[in-house]
Amino acid sequence: MFKETLQSIVEKTDGGLGAVIMGTDGLPVEKFFSAEAAEANLDVAAAEFTSLIRNAARSAKDLNLGEVRELVLSLDNVTLLMRALHREYFFLLAVRPDGNLGRGRYELRKAELMLAAEFAV
Amino acid sequence: MFKETLQSIVEKTDGGLGAVIMGTDGLPVEKFFSAEAAEANLDVAAAEFTSLIRNAARSAKDLNLGEVRELVLSLDNVTLLMRALHREYFFLLAVRPDGNLGRGRYELRKAELMLAAEFAV
Repeated sequence: MFKETLQSIVEKTDGGLGAVIMGTDGLPVEKFFSAEAAEANLDVAAAEFTSLIRNAARSAKDLNLGEVRELVLSLDNVTLLMRALHREYFFLLAVRPDGNLGRGRYELRKAELMLAAEFAV
Repeated sequence: MFKETLQSIVEKTDGGLGAVIMGTDGLPVEKFFSAEAAEANLDVAAAEFTSLIRNAARSAKDLNLGEVRELVLSLDNVTLLMRALHREYFFLLAVRPDGNLGRGRYELRKAELMLAAEFAV
């Protein structure tokens, strides 16, 4: 079910390259990457950028600013959208710089609601 | 001129709390905060989240994904929008969670173009 959800997010998002359900420890629960994304080593990038959301969560907590809901990182070659799914898991969606970021955000939010029961542990 | 630019960004963005031109070393060049933002210690948050954009830039470079253009961090209590202005400086805009993030992004991009000459060193 996770894989189908990820594939659906990627296919519905114009410019979608890949999606992962990631643990904040950097280990993926499930992933779906297009051939283009696999070539660009986006699975390695997903693991690398896990530390970003972990550090953001720590700083936010220290500053009493609440939990991380979403983190969007736009780079020259790819845009990475990360969305908290649970305290220990998050979605990561990779989109081409000219892709439809808004649709990606919408699809992630929808998937979050669908999977909320699964991750409400 | 920097202060006026920052004030204009904050005032034009619905829910805008404060804006900073920040060095990637964590020292602000100029800042403008509303009274509400000053109370919430958003100037401290700005310095704290500098490490986030610095780490993102380092990871992106390691992975050949290019430079950081923009980083948006949505927390329960505030949304932080960071936009690269130059290799060593970036804008940070703090917006209330129910504020107009899209307008904030637009205002930062406009200001980036205006200040590009100043920072093209």
